[in-house]
Amino acid sequence: MAFDHRKYVAFTPVAKTDRRWPDKVITTAPRFCAVDLRDGNQALVKPMSVAQKQRMFELLVKLGFKEIEIGFPAASQPDFDFCRKLIEEDRIPDDVHIQVLTQARPELIERTYEALKGARKAIVHVYNSTSTVQREQVFGMDRDGIRDIAVNGARIVKANAEKYPDTEWTFQYSPESFTGTELDYAAEVIDAVNDVWRPDQGQPVVINLPATVEMATPNVFADQIEWICDHVRYREHISISVHTHNDRGCGVAAAELAVMAGADRVEGTLMGNGERTGNMDLVTMAMNLYSQGVDPTVDLSGMAEITDVVEACTEISTHPRHPYAGELVFTAFSGSHQDAIRKCLAKRKDGDTWHVAYLPIDPRDLGRRYEEVVRINSQSGKGGVAYVLERDYNISLPRWLQIEFSKLVQREAETNGGEIDSLTIHRLFEDRYLKVPGAWELRSYDLHRDDEGVAATVSIGAGDEPVILKGHGLGAVEAVSAALEAEYGVSLAVEAYDEFALGEGTNANALACIRVTVNGQHCSAAALAEDTTSATLQALFSAVSQVVGEVHQHRVSSTATADASA
Amino acid sequence: MAFDHRKYVAFTPVAKTDRRWPDKVITTAPRFCAVDLRDGNQALVKPMSVAQKQRMFELLVKLGFKEIEIGFPAASQPDFDFCRKLIEEDRIPDDVHIQVLTQARPELIERTYEALKGARKAIVHVYNSTSTVQREQVFGMDRDGIRDIAVNGARIVKANAEKYPDTEWTFQYSPESFTGTELDYAAEVIDAVNDVWRPDQGQPVVINLPATVEMATPNVFADQIEWICDHVRYREHISISVHTHNDRGCGVAAAELAVMAGADRVEGTLMGNGERTGNMDLVTMAMNLYSQGVDPTVDLSGMAEITDVVEACTEISTHPRHPYAGELVFTAFSGSHQDAIRKCLAKRKDGDTWHVAYLPIDPRDLGRRYEEVVRINSQSGKGGVAYVLERDYNISLPRWLQIEFSKLVQREAETNGGEIDSLTIHRLFEDRYLKVPGAWELRSYDLHRDDEGVAATVSIGAGDEPVILKGHGLGAVEAVSAALEAEYGVSLAVEAYDEFALGEGTNANALACIRVTVNGQHCSAAALAEDTTSATLQALFSAVSQVVGEVHQHRVSSTATADASA
Repeated sequence: MAFDHRKYVAFTPVAKTDRRWPDKVITTAPRFCAVDLRDGNQALVKPMSVAQKQRMFELLVKLGFKEIEIGFPAASQPDFDFCRKLIEEDRIPDDVHIQVLTQARPELIERTYEALKGARKAIVHVYNSTSTVQREQVFGMDRDGIRDIAVNGARIVKANAEKYPDTEWTFQYSPESFTGTELDYAAEVIDAVNDVWRPDQGQPVVINLPATVEMATPNVFADQIEWICDHVRYREHISISVHTHNDRGCGVAAAELAVMAGADRVEGTLMGNGERTGNMDLVTMAMNLYSQGVDPTVDLSGMAEITDVVEACTEISTHPRHPYAGELVFTAFSGSHQDAIRKCLAKRKDGDTWHVAYLPIDPRDLGRRYEEVVRINSQSGKGGVAYVLERDYNISLPRWLQIEFSKLVQREAETNGGEIDSLTIHRLFEDRYLKVPGAWELRSYDLHRDDEGVAATVSIGAGDEPVILKGHGLGAVEAVSAALEAEYGVSLAVEAYDEFALGEGTNANALACIRVTVNGQHCSAAALAEDTTSATLQALFSAVSQVVGEVHQHRVSSTATADASA
Repeated sequence: MAFDHRKYVAFTPVAKTDRRWPDKVITTAPRFCAVDLRDGNQALVKPMSVAQKQRMFELLVKLGFKEIEIGFPAASQPDFDFCRKLIEEDRIPDDVHIQVLTQARPELIERTYEALKGARKAIVHVYNSTSTVQREQVFGMDRDGIRDIAVNGARIVKANAEKYPDTEWTFQYSPESFTGTELDYAAEVIDAVNDVWRPDQGQPVVINLPATVEMATPNVFADQIEWICDHVRYREHISISVHTHNDRGCGVAAAELAVMAGADRVEGTLMGNGERTGNMDLVTMAMNLYSQGVDPTVDLSGMAEITDVVEACTEISTHPRHPYAGELVFTAFSGSHQDAIRKCLAKRKDGDTWHVAYLPIDPRDLGRRYEEVVRINSQSGKGGVAYVLERDYNISLPRWLQIEFSKLVQREAETNGGEIDSLTIHRLFEDRYLKVPGAWELRSYDLHRDDEGVAATVSIGAGDEPVILKGHGLGAVEAVSAALEAEYGVSLAVEAYDEFALGEGTNANALACIRVTVNGQHCSAAALAEDTTSATLQALFSAVSQVVGEVHQHRVSSTATADASA
């Protein structure tokens, strides 16, 4: 049987009685180290060219990363050459540490220092594998043997550094496959390395704890980190760093909980590129901090540029649902989501704390536009449709018309099966409500208000023969309705009407929407005009014409004057 | 300033003094509910067609999901029609519950039951929004008003169910935007709903707690779930379900920690499709369980089919680093990773528990081949190169030749900049070691062993004029080396040689690799032959010829017989 879970055993969690991290909240960003040019690069089908590496390096510097792992120069000639290029062409800002990886072997360490010659600030990152599986199955060595590899590596790192006194050296050690290493043994190896490096005597040291393979739920990783922070010597003199992978889809969670558990520093890559399932995604973690009001220490406002560069360098597309960066992550298609977003944005004032339903952050912070937020398909409702018309055409619909019109949009979306853009929505609105075929055209109106109400005289119809209607009522709509009842012999009730003054950028100044019942039949229409009264009366005529037909049909008398005053 | 974290406030965590979940380990799978056809579908630019929906439904059934949310029939005519189709065409297996979503409004609930008429087992999933932001900014209602919406919905759900007694009804309530809802208020609403439904009197009830928007680190969600499990009434009679989203990239982590915190059930989608950043990914969570020896209750062995169907239905490609399903997630390009994988796989016996460095699970369980695991580019080392030759050509290289040859492969990879396939690697090996230009061809050998060692007579060279060499030594190689020294006047030392019997499927039976020093110059070669001695001697001649040149050049005497016995 191929699919059999019994082939696997559960990871043994950390037995902890003094756990404190679940009560912690991250209030300052950890130090970030970007390893795109090393872990990210080594996992690509086609590793980056020199031009691509340079572009990535410049992006990382621009975003504000101060620690950047640029390669494994002792194992790769292109990495060596790139390291030399950065140093010799003076491309590394004064406040940026470059970091390079090396195994704990004498000839590799020596070559590593050759690659770094002339660097102002550099981190020599030495590692060896410490897990039980690696010890037993790969190296065939016991705990002491593996620890000696680390200690020997630490000695050679230190000895070589003394040869280049003009560089500010930071030493970094990773017990690789840390998550598969017994905690007491990991602490033993770390202590032995630090006994060589003596961080208490001023040597800057990073101890990096990799989830080389993600092996358990992220809380277990946090327990491991807290345990190590509690048990290693020289704790106050060293930086504890984590480097998580995403094998269980929890790389970001593990890094966040690890920071709560005491980690000072986090390694990761932009968009989470890296071995297999990838590294911890720096974009997601930094934006998670940002969304909680914590300064992420890097500036990700140019998200489009970030994804462009990452895609160009890795040849991996950004997933449309990638947190913060994906095409669809700020988009709401669902009607109720659209409605809620619309209401929250409308209530929001500049300077307000951000509290908008369904939007964890303001998309504008990352260079996205609200235009992308509400998109319409068959799953969308009145809120989205109304939002799009308002946003793109300055047309505000009353709620009753939102409901009516959105059904029409939904039917259209169900028929074509996909997204409906705002141009199409506007055309549907025009065709259905504004350009009613055969609608009567308002030519002029004359209103006279006195104590008894409004007396209206309107002229409608096309060509040389306008029709004059006269009526009386409490307002213009009622007066004209009365005239229509008298003239056309219909029973007419106005159910709802709304007028809106329009903003700038439109030809008309007013929009009116109306729903009437004519002989028991519902009909609605809208109209744009230079003033609100014209718009409302035109909307009324457009609505009534749908039931009554052409202006000259069914008229009781072509010259009749109706008076419907109460 | 566009990029300013001060616009946001931190999520207030749960003050907890009785937290137990961090000590828990998941030992059985939660009940899974797949919401691909609802949350997943509503978030697509182009929602699924009927044919796509049917394909997705059939896949979910085939994988073993027993609870499948198929739509929001009251809000969408296509969803209504699809629901009717499944029921009327009898496409729902007896043990599968279909689930449909509805808002807590009378006309929608009524329409929902019409959609479900005739279903054997159905879950009516009713929701309303309960968060502070939704209450204040979207609905403009207080706590009591929002609770009444829920209670009223619960009543109507119950009343309608009584009209259709032939269906096994489960009621599900979601306080939507739960993560933004005060816990005491969420419990109040849940209790009020259950006071109507009375799960203690036998009505099956699911209370689903959505992280509609992921708002904090996943431990906070676990705290929220544990709090609710501790504080709601009827706890032992209801199922607590979670429905997480991925806004902070931690949707899977939040669901896992929530299960540790007491959740019985998890909603999600295949590959995490869903609103914005997506839903909890069922594939990742199920495989995470599987990798810990826990029965995931669904069969994901046909991963290629799963990604095919999901891609066809959502029109979203699978990210190459998607856990368990991405193209690159079982691939190692790094030399040290390749080496470790090769060693672990070689030591592994059928039936062993899985412990392979860098591979959290056996790729074969998901229909992947080991061929994909080790791929070669300029970041690869000897291990990977050796593995590829062994895997695809049955050629085992000794360690010294792995080191030598992998440098050649790496140079080639650095030159072409991309991946190198196994055909190219084999061609490089042939060109460099097997087909040495001008190499002397072994024609026959005669070995005679007695107490003093081996006497060898070999015939080499092409055409009618073979060269006969005779020598004596402790073994065949030493004997022939002695003959070569005498005949060609060279100083020759054999540094290493290795012979391998080859497996089936090759023309030759043996491969030999040799490295010699000739006049202080290193040279190495390999040879394939029908027997190991032939292979070794041919390799020796190929190596020596690289220094000495053509067989007839530099010979001391064309008929000389050398005797180099000690």
